[in-house]
Amino acid sequence: VIDVGGETLILTHDMIAEGVHYLPATDPADVAWKLVAVNLSDLAAKGAEPIGLLIGASLTADSAAFVEGLRAVLIEYGVPLLGGDTVSPAGEAMFGCTAIGRATHRPVPLRSGAKPGDALWVTGTIGLALLGFRTAKDGADGDPASYLRPVPRLAEGRALAPHVRAMMDVSDGLLLDARRMAEASGCTIDIALGSIPFPAGLDSADRLAAASWGDDYELLFAAPADFEPPVRATRVGTVLPAGPEPLLLDGASPPDRLGYEHE
Amino acid sequence: VIDVGGETLILTHDMIAEGVHYLPATDPADVAWKLVAVNLSDLAAKGAEPIGLLIGASLTADSAAFVEGLRAVLIEYGVPLLGGDTVSPAGEAMFGCTAIGRATHRPVPLRSGAKPGDALWVTGTIGLALLGFRTAKDGADGDPASYLRPVPRLAEGRALAPHVRAMMDVSDGLLLDARRMAEASGCTIDIALGSIPFPAGLDSADRLAAASWGDDYELLFAAPADFEPPVRATRVGTVLPAGPEPLLLDGASPPDRLGYEHE
Repeated sequence: VIDVGGETLILTHDMIAEGVHYLPATDPADVAWKLVAVNLSDLAAKGAEPIGLLIGASLTADSAAFVEGLRAVLIEYGVPLLGGDTVSPAGEAMFGCTAIGRATHRPVPLRSGAKPGDALWVTGTIGLALLGFRTAKDGADGDPASYLRPVPRLAEGRALAPHVRAMMDVSDGLLLDARRMAEASGCTIDIALGSIPFPAGLDSADRLAAASWGDDYELLFAAPADFEPPVRATRVGTVLPAGPEPLLLDGASPPDRLGYEHE
Repeated sequence: VIDVGGETLILTHDMIAEGVHYLPATDPADVAWKLVAVNLSDLAAKGAEPIGLLIGASLTADSAAFVEGLRAVLIEYGVPLLGGDTVSPAGEAMFGCTAIGRATHRPVPLRSGAKPGDALWVTGTIGLALLGFRTAKDGADGDPASYLRPVPRLAEGRALAPHVRAMMDVSDGLLLDARRMAEASGCTIDIALGSIPFPAGLDSADRLAAASWGDDYELLFAAPADFEPPVRATRVGTVLPAGPEPLLLDGASPPDRLGYEHE
């Protein structure tokens, strides 16, 4: 977040790597989509309007498909490509994206602003990415698009930014990201597992897996208890004064592994 | 180049990859330095003042050395790290850097503004990087720092920006980059090989190699014939009306391979 000439700019940089963030057999067009979408999701969580992108790409035989997917996502979100660079690597493919956006509301919502007494909300549905991953990997029932082509919640982020006390996108799992919000805010967050908006058809045994699975790219936000969100969102928890643990699940200690921990 | 709230911002993104842009045995601290320096050099060529950087890094066993080199170059140029991402790849290391800067003069100098009658100049010395590469690779006489730790010409770029008609950094070789300036400007550029500021001790047989070797990161600029640069620079050529070839060397066709052509 930087201030330039009276505007507040948001800059994000996320990478995705073959074998780490996506299956090697993934269509390069889907890789391009996801690379851009995850960065736009970071802007969405700040209530920012995208200005443009820069892409660093390791291009190999499938570069035409990558470029086609890149074009599709840029058109979908109306974002210009401002620059970039390519290399031809010997090993696994790797891609980086910098997104730059303009804050639509100041102060820019951070993950650190949640206050005891706030309600915790999440947009959309949590678990579609898990089902989509299984479909992409094993051909299980489901829509792989939820995993392969996530949708950044740009309009929702802009609508919420003036009202929330803390906001972030759910990239590494609802539980892990909620714990991060609690830690950054110096609070404890208590999540009610039964209130999480899981997709219809999710086996009850999979609920904890879905709450610990990333890639949904929904927005998680804390807001005063009487706030009614102007977008489709579900109340999933409560912000409490800091207790011995930053995250509670139904009032008790959560399992050890909450989500996708980066190296 | 984007306009935001009355300011003009310059954004650049360059990648460097193991085995492509540097030798696998290179100290990760030098890799970090070069990654940042080549991006700052792009800002220098636009007369921009750096605002900050975002880094995408594949970190492996040597990540402490990379971080140390990164810290050194950020301190050297007084540039803050605004964000970034890391991955642990299975294959070759790869790094990306986005630099953002503020234009100090508008219009921002581009490579496309050279006009017939302009003089072509280059800052500093051309060929130190070639000698440094040989030292790094084979232990030949020379200073490997010129190759491993290039110096972005930020102050020179800011001093020149108000006066030049076209400017770019010499990243892929003086001759190749001069041809690109000629093509972008719709002109022909004639370079006098004997006028190029080669380092003392460069064998005359190596002069063409040095003029075709990248990595010097000096600034190449075209300016009206009567302009006297306020920085150390050498006049190396003349801008002519467009002829059958965009680049001439001593008035004649240059060799086929002019420099480092990206894939």
